Amino acid sequence: MTDDNVQLVVVGSIGIDTIETPFDRREEILGGSVSYACAAASFYTTVGMVGVVGEDFPDEFLEVYRGFGIDLAGLQRAAGRTFRWSGVYEADMVNRRTLLTELNVFEAFSPELPDAYRDAPFFLLGNISPELQLHVLEQARAPRFVVADTMDLWINIARDALEGVIGKVDMLTLNDGEARLLTDEYNLRQCAESILDMGPTYVVIKKGEHGAMLVSRNGIALLPAYPVGETLDPTGAGDAFAGGFMGALARDGEIDDAHVRQALLHGATVASFGVQDFSLDRLRTLSPDLVSARLRELKAMIGQ
Amino acid sequence: MTDDNVQLVVVGSIGIDTIETPFDRREEILGGSVSYACAAASFYTTVGMVGVVGEDFPDEFLEVYRGFGIDLAGLQRAAGRTFRWSGVYEADMVNRRTLLTELNVFEAFSPELPDAYRDAPFFLLGNISPELQLHVLEQARAPRFVVADTMDLWINIARDALEGVIGKVDMLTLNDGEARLLTDEYNLRQCAESILDMGPTYVVIKKGEHGAMLVSRNGIALLPAYPVGETLDPTGAGDAFAGGFMGALARDGEIDDAHVRQALLHGATVASFGVQDFSLDRLRTLSPDLVSARLRELKAMIGQ
Repeated sequence: MTDDNVQLVVVGSIGIDTIETPFDRREEILGGSVSYACAAASFYTTVGMVGVVGEDFPDEFLEVYRGFGIDLAGLQRAAGRTFRWSGVYEADMVNRRTLLTELNVFEAFSPELPDAYRDAPFFLLGNISPELQLHVLEQARAPRFVVADTMDLWINIARDALEGVIGKVDMLTLNDGEARLLTDEYNLRQCAESILDMGPTYVVIKKGEHGAMLVSRNGIALLPAYPVGETLDPTGAGDAFAGGFMGALARDGEIDDAHVRQALLHGATVASFGVQDFSLDRLRTLSPDLVSARLRELKAMIGQ
Repeated sequence: MTDDNVQLVVVGSIGIDTIETPFDRREEILGGSVSYACAAASFYTTVGMVGVVGEDFPDEFLEVYRGFGIDLAGLQRAAGRTFRWSGVYEADMVNRRTLLTELNVFEAFSPELPDAYRDAPFFLLGNISPELQLHVLEQARAPRFVVADTMDLWINIARDALEGVIGKVDMLTLNDGEARLLTDEYNLRQCAESILDMGPTYVVIKKGEHGAMLVSRNGIALLPAYPVGETLDPTGAGDAFAGGFMGALARDGEIDDAHVRQALLHGATVASFGVQDFSLDRLRTLSPDLVSARLRELKAMIGQ
């Protein structure tokens, strides 16, 4: 199934997760950065997924993707087992300990874009190695806006390639700890300035439940997180945030500071639903009306 | 010197601090919750200070107070040494370790309001024991709006008295860790709901560099902190926030959700200057024009 009208291409990991929180435990649930990002983006635009699964990937998970209307032309199925991750959250529901990481088919993954995706205007390069992010970029013929996410692992082991990516994208998203690691600055404002010097137009520093900071040469926008009454599983919140953001940006079609800021509020809103259940469970039953209502509520909370 | 027109009375601690950060160290500087709060409030309204100092309290510190135009009719001078505190900040400039606490004259402090203060409309009960906070409240003849701040010590050793205070004030301010300790809830939204059940109209949960959350029965307002490029000394930021807030509220004279929210943004703005130097040093040279300019900048950052 190829949709010639895919507006947003998302590349990243697909995993089967086992997650323990202080309140619950779930085994072998659908996860991965690309799953959360595509599901969130699907509320706004046509989204194509580029990733890899193993022979053991359950059909029911493919049905979940299809339920969101995600285009799967770029989904590869490889011999072997699907990537697996297992982690335990502490009482704060923020800090977590990884119990197990099995790369499996993800180890030899090379993201290849279906021809129809190469003309897509929006690209979200989820958290995969910077070499693979560059490989995706090389296949894009006329990208209008490209976001890359990254993590501490790549900062530590592939800094040169990562700086190459940062120099080629429109926006880099990363969390506060990663921003400090990347720039060797502590103050987040100074971190953001250093990253802007590497080339992107925008930097988004994610602070989890404390929201995010958007920084460009034109100034700073402070973005709140919606105060969720009860978080069941924070996994994938940053990916859903990025996916919802890119989906909203693609839908609106205009790219300037004001639209970027509004699209980020959409991302924060969708992500806030995502953490209210495990895996994609809350997003699966979520209606666009509920997203709109919570976005209005979030904007009222910041006086917009 | 008594000013019959004191609009805001602030009660709290006056200390002589020795503070070490990763970048600097200052000995025997002016501190204490009431110092920061009164200085911040003085940008907006006439403020009277109620506190105690010892015989060793330097005249130059009194001159600092007078420089802000703070009314000192409620300032007691007792036999003995002034309260002293010494602490070391970690690299994050948030977590700190107390090296020394000498109560000295603060141990026997009983806040007595000059007669002119008893008719003041606004009261800020800074971080002193809840028994003393109640003692102040009993002297107020017609308070329009009372805020109490508290800390983990009182939650641990004087919970009953503290709950008595919370039931009598219009707003409680406390930080996130203290809110969790007080309510035995983890989620801050649930913490705030529990505290509202104790009686106040408003709860402000302070999150330091991550801003604050204002909660009432009418909903939640998310308040950003201004992203300071370089923090020299975070001591007193919460007190300056509360003082600036109460000053702005007293100046405007109207008390409703919208005015409370706007006044809190004033508090956040003044507090952001305070941390850019040690003690009251940055506030001493600060002009109202600079406060207004940064407030506009802060509001633009949240899209207001």
